Amino acid sequence: MSQMRKDVFTGRWVVLAETDIVKPTDFQFRPFTRGGGFCPFCETNESSTPPEVFALRAPGSLPNGPGWRVRVVPNTEPRLRIEGDLGRRGEGIHDLMNGIGAHEIIAETPRHDCSLHQLEVGEIADVVRAYVARIVDLELDRRLRYVLIFKNHGEEAGAHTISHSITHLMALPVTPRIIKNKLMVARDYYAQKERCLYCDALKQELEKRRRLIAENQDFVAIAPFASRFPFEMWVLPKFHASAFSQITPSQTATLAQILRDILQKLDCTLGRPPWNLCLQDRPFLRPRKGYWETIEADFHWHWEILPQVSRISGFEHASGFYYNPVPPEIAARCLASASGA
Amino acid sequence: MSQMRKDVFTGRWVVLAETDIVKPTDFQFRPFTRGGGFCPFCETNESSTPPEVFALRAPGSLPNGPGWRVRVVPNTEPRLRIEGDLGRRGEGIHDLMNGIGAHEIIAETPRHDCSLHQLEVGEIADVVRAYVARIVDLELDRRLRYVLIFKNHGEEAGAHTISHSITHLMALPVTPRIIKNKLMVARDYYAQKERCLYCDALKQELEKRRRLIAENQDFVAIAPFASRFPFEMWVLPKFHASAFSQITPSQTATLAQILRDILQKLDCTLGRPPWNLCLQDRPFLRPRKGYWETIEADFHWHWEILPQVSRISGFEHASGFYYNPVPPEIAARCLASASGA
Repeated sequence: MSQMRKDVFTGRWVVLAETDIVKPTDFQFRPFTRGGGFCPFCETNESSTPPEVFALRAPGSLPNGPGWRVRVVPNTEPRLRIEGDLGRRGEGIHDLMNGIGAHEIIAETPRHDCSLHQLEVGEIADVVRAYVARIVDLELDRRLRYVLIFKNHGEEAGAHTISHSITHLMALPVTPRIIKNKLMVARDYYAQKERCLYCDALKQELEKRRRLIAENQDFVAIAPFASRFPFEMWVLPKFHASAFSQITPSQTATLAQILRDILQKLDCTLGRPPWNLCLQDRPFLRPRKGYWETIEADFHWHWEILPQVSRISGFEHASGFYYNPVPPEIAARCLASASGA
Repeated sequence: MSQMRKDVFTGRWVVLAETDIVKPTDFQFRPFTRGGGFCPFCETNESSTPPEVFALRAPGSLPNGPGWRVRVVPNTEPRLRIEGDLGRRGEGIHDLMNGIGAHEIIAETPRHDCSLHQLEVGEIADVVRAYVARIVDLELDRRLRYVLIFKNHGEEAGAHTISHSITHLMALPVTPRIIKNKLMVARDYYAQKERCLYCDALKQELEKRRRLIAENQDFVAIAPFASRFPFEMWVLPKFHASAFSQITPSQTATLAQILRDILQKLDCTLGRPPWNLCLQDRPFLRPRKGYWETIEADFHWHWEILPQVSRISGFEHASGFYYNPVPPEIAARCLASASGA
């Protein structure tokens, strides 16, 4: 019999099928391939992008020239722009504001033929350093409340215009509703138990180990109990932390290591599937009405990896429910035993 | 400059681009085509499906034989099953229950070569009658709380296994979170204003007419202010009603007429795009804690038509935000002027 499971972090329900055999051919997707042609994000083509806002570079190399390891530039087709004021206003019953924010592209490597998980651990750690540096910088802009960091890998995951391995960064003037929802649920839990919801859930996963995919000294990768997508993976710090930007240098290295490991396991298990990688971080602490004063105790940052191997239909759009043909216990077993880093 | 708009019915934010020229070629999708081969939903193939649970038939025709206009059968690969008990239980910190419910397929026409919006108005009215009959019947099952009715038109919208024109019906033991969210927002609004949120929003749309697509004596089709998808359309009754199943015979005919009209306009504007059609109805009134006693005043049923012409990416998955390259005012202008029914 199929199961309905409730995601304890959001209240979202998921219908899980009763499948017990999973083959890569059960899913329809185009195995990932990288497009060719001229690429503005390749080394030596730096003049084809707007001036960089951040880069990790070899000593002596000049901004907007070769010699970088990770490079961050404004998106030339930004969904939000940094100039202007918010202009919050009404239109009768409706609310709107100007599209203010930042939209940056993080080129993860100077090489066109490499995906994030094909980089060395040290190179991935550089990418994580770039994420942190941009968050810390954007937090200074008082108009902004949240930095979204996400990656679209493969066409089915939304990467149809840029073929170089990049991460998107968008800084927003509002907190996204998925994050608000998670914050509210985590706050209610903390208010009741005086413990972090994520720490408690993690403790249970580490005891039962049925949904464990990988683990190192600082991080755990699990297939979440109410996985929305087949082979969905979450990476959580074992230590409690609400703000991603407070990651230490040694944690940066262990995060890079576990991300590389599980993305390689996913590649190997399904045969280069498309996926999205999304950071779930706390919003900036903007003191207002004391609303979120408890946020540092309540929330626990994490990464979500969402393989896009089955299509969202009217079911998901109409209900917010998800249907997942692969129970996470089976996904975890397949992934954990796959060869990774 | 792009705009951020808040959906007044859910609190969801949408980023709208500043586009002002829209061509069908701006979007990537496969124009809708219907697959061939043997089809269990075609007339004379009735024995290839489970026995029908409802049909509208010519006088004298026999169940599970030819002579039907609309026919409803259980899904042979149901996501939820009707037999058994809910078995609500915990697993440590998590909640789950058995996958109990109904999953039915509504064959909208005996003809394989016809889509919903290519049927005559009277035939579409028959489909609406079938929806209502199934909701009324399933409401008698006390385990169930909600009936989801949705349609996937085209592969990108999730219709990759059945090529006949069908609607999915799923009866659920819980109220979907999108509906719960809409109910809560509508209840708060009513508590404050003593007016229905949807009636107020509709009044404004009918005055301004900037987002109006079509209208008849009972219904209005609009491009919603905070459209998530390019060319998104909503159909709302002009009269206040919380339960779709209370629709009258004459309203059934006018609903069929406006659905046909706007789906034909959409087909014509974008060139046979994929779309989802989703009913947003109130849950069954199961008295429990008096929680929803005001639901009949608060909520206002409606249909959503969601064209699937741009891909959801990590942005939407990470944030619950949507990015829409086509402002609804432009979509409404294109759609309203397209030739429909």
